[in-house]
Amino acid sequence: MTLESGASFGPITITYETYGTLSEEKDNAILITHAFTGDAHVAGYHSDDTEQEKAGWWDFMVGPGKGIDTNRYFVICTNILGSCMGTTGPSSINPETGKPYGMDFPMVTIGDMVEAQKALIDHLQIPKLLSVIGGSVGGMQVLEWCARYPEMVRSAVPIATTMRHSALAIAFNEIARQAIMADPNWQQGEYYEGEKPDLGLAVARMVGHVTYLSDEAMRRKFGRRLQDKNDFSYDFGVDFQVESYLRYQGSKFVRRFDANSMLYITKAADYFDLKDRLTENGCLGKMHGYESKFLVISYSSDWLYPTYQAKELVQALKRNGQDVSFCEIEADCGHDAFLIPDERLTNLIRGFLNGIS
Amino acid sequence: MTLESGASFGPITITYETYGTLSEEKDNAILITHAFTGDAHVAGYHSDDTEQEKAGWWDFMVGPGKGIDTNRYFVICTNILGSCMGTTGPSSINPETGKPYGMDFPMVTIGDMVEAQKALIDHLQIPKLLSVIGGSVGGMQVLEWCARYPEMVRSAVPIATTMRHSALAIAFNEIARQAIMADPNWQQGEYYEGEKPDLGLAVARMVGHVTYLSDEAMRRKFGRRLQDKNDFSYDFGVDFQVESYLRYQGSKFVRRFDANSMLYITKAADYFDLKDRLTENGCLGKMHGYESKFLVISYSSDWLYPTYQAKELVQALKRNGQDVSFCEIEADCGHDAFLIPDERLTNLIRGFLNGIS
Repeated sequence: MTLESGASFGPITITYETYGTLSEEKDNAILITHAFTGDAHVAGYHSDDTEQEKAGWWDFMVGPGKGIDTNRYFVICTNILGSCMGTTGPSSINPETGKPYGMDFPMVTIGDMVEAQKALIDHLQIPKLLSVIGGSVGGMQVLEWCARYPEMVRSAVPIATTMRHSALAIAFNEIARQAIMADPNWQQGEYYEGEKPDLGLAVARMVGHVTYLSDEAMRRKFGRRLQDKNDFSYDFGVDFQVESYLRYQGSKFVRRFDANSMLYITKAADYFDLKDRLTENGCLGKMHGYESKFLVISYSSDWLYPTYQAKELVQALKRNGQDVSFCEIEADCGHDAFLIPDERLTNLIRGFLNGIS
Repeated sequence: MTLESGASFGPITITYETYGTLSEEKDNAILITHAFTGDAHVAGYHSDDTEQEKAGWWDFMVGPGKGIDTNRYFVICTNILGSCMGTTGPSSINPETGKPYGMDFPMVTIGDMVEAQKALIDHLQIPKLLSVIGGSVGGMQVLEWCARYPEMVRSAVPIATTMRHSALAIAFNEIARQAIMADPNWQQGEYYEGEKPDLGLAVARMVGHVTYLSDEAMRRKFGRRLQDKNDFSYDFGVDFQVESYLRYQGSKFVRRFDANSMLYITKAADYFDLKDRLTENGCLGKMHGYESKFLVISYSSDWLYPTYQAKELVQALKRNGQDVSFCEIEADCGHDAFLIPDERLTNLIRGFLNGIS
């Protein structure tokens, strides 16, 4: 494929999972787009050993009888381009060298991720998606789908997202990248045969993790509670539970995620700006003449992509003649709220999908 | 001195500056307490070469005829214990070994910083301070002064601060510490004779810097403006101005600040919790029976120590019978606002000091 940067790139492997059955009319397909560090495994278990295995990342939402009911809908979820969960990314083998791409992997954009998904949807011979649904970086993919292929999207649910990555969001991503690249084990991205930049990646993850929470959530969850102690340690070990939690999140993350993928995906998010393309060459304007239904959802305590940004999106969509519903969910758990079981989100999405004909 | 941890420590050098003249009655002394990375050089220039030299960090506030008028007041500012700007800290020489303390420096608290200042004030034979004024970590010192020595404080101006370091604030400090300690040059704090942990310290500073700004300030200051380019670079160089700014702030900081001092001072801030001491053994309650006047100031866009925390402080002070004025200044520039020239802050402090008799 030709990438948005102009570079040619391929071949590409796309890892995906499907749930439910595609109708004969091929009109019940829903594409779920995952967030930053997610994967194609959106729901359920891969084996019968449900005690050992972790359920998919949106298991409370997707399944038989659930908000996105796999008895009714054919659900598709792909791992995004540039990731490390099966779809081609910087840790994949470069066929030209027989070694992982590393920094030879081309810069990809949210648009490129969507083009890869489009190739899959075409391959599955699905002419039109009943809905495209996703949160955060997944929500950016939702919007990019609508802008590029409005004729293929009957409805869209962008959640906890923005149409324009803000300076604050870029700043946190840049800090994460600098933390990784400051780790001497990073080795300009060529670390796959040696020690990995685990310490830098852990710091990067901690930064991300704090931005996914909120002041209120952290007060409720941790406050100033001490870890295993009755008094301060007066050293640089762990004093507070929140420190222990962050260190744990950092060290857990390095076991499952590739540092270079973090570099590439943060950069794709930083480049994301539908607003400029809306005003300059009418990218979003392409939706004119197509009847898509939108459900835009934000969370009151999300300070990474705050509600005012969701409202900007709603206004832009309305200016383009779209049918938009908007809901701000009151929740104190910050940006990550859409990943936490909540009947309100489930009911919103179920009701919205019921209304798509 | 005996530290809050129970450890004994000394001797201690305290670097300080004074401005103006102490009255014969010794009743016009104002102690200014600096924030995290500040120093004793609060205003003016050290030499006549004002073009080459940087003015003190609160030059717009302190000086002849200014908000804190050095024609009227005798102003004292000390570098805090644990810092690296002249007062004893981890980069100072340990007399027992002839080498820098490094991690042999004892853990110090905000209370210990205040005890060191108290020793200086006693040395200067000042029985009572007209006011103690400071922002952020400086504001914590202000509150600690009131709790420990209410009989010595006629008035106090805690700005953009908290009486209890929150989980969110601890989280960001912990990330900064982890970034430093992840740098292999850190060497358990013994880097003074070799390469310094500059990359880790730069990342730590970037984290801090973002918390000092606000979403609005960053949108206004940077937005999504590109650096020196008309289009994206599609590489990991600098694309956005905000990236360039952060990298610059990081690299500038490592030239003037010591990584170990950052570890110690962040930890002191994390330990700061006047609220528990208020409810448990009445530390703040000691102020009962002393007439101190308080001016508590917060900034509307400060998300590190938000206004709700200033209000908690106001309520606690009032419960202890104190005379408290409170002002939230509307400003979009975030936590660091008190360091930015603003007539409103100047007038507030000038007016408040005029009312102290």
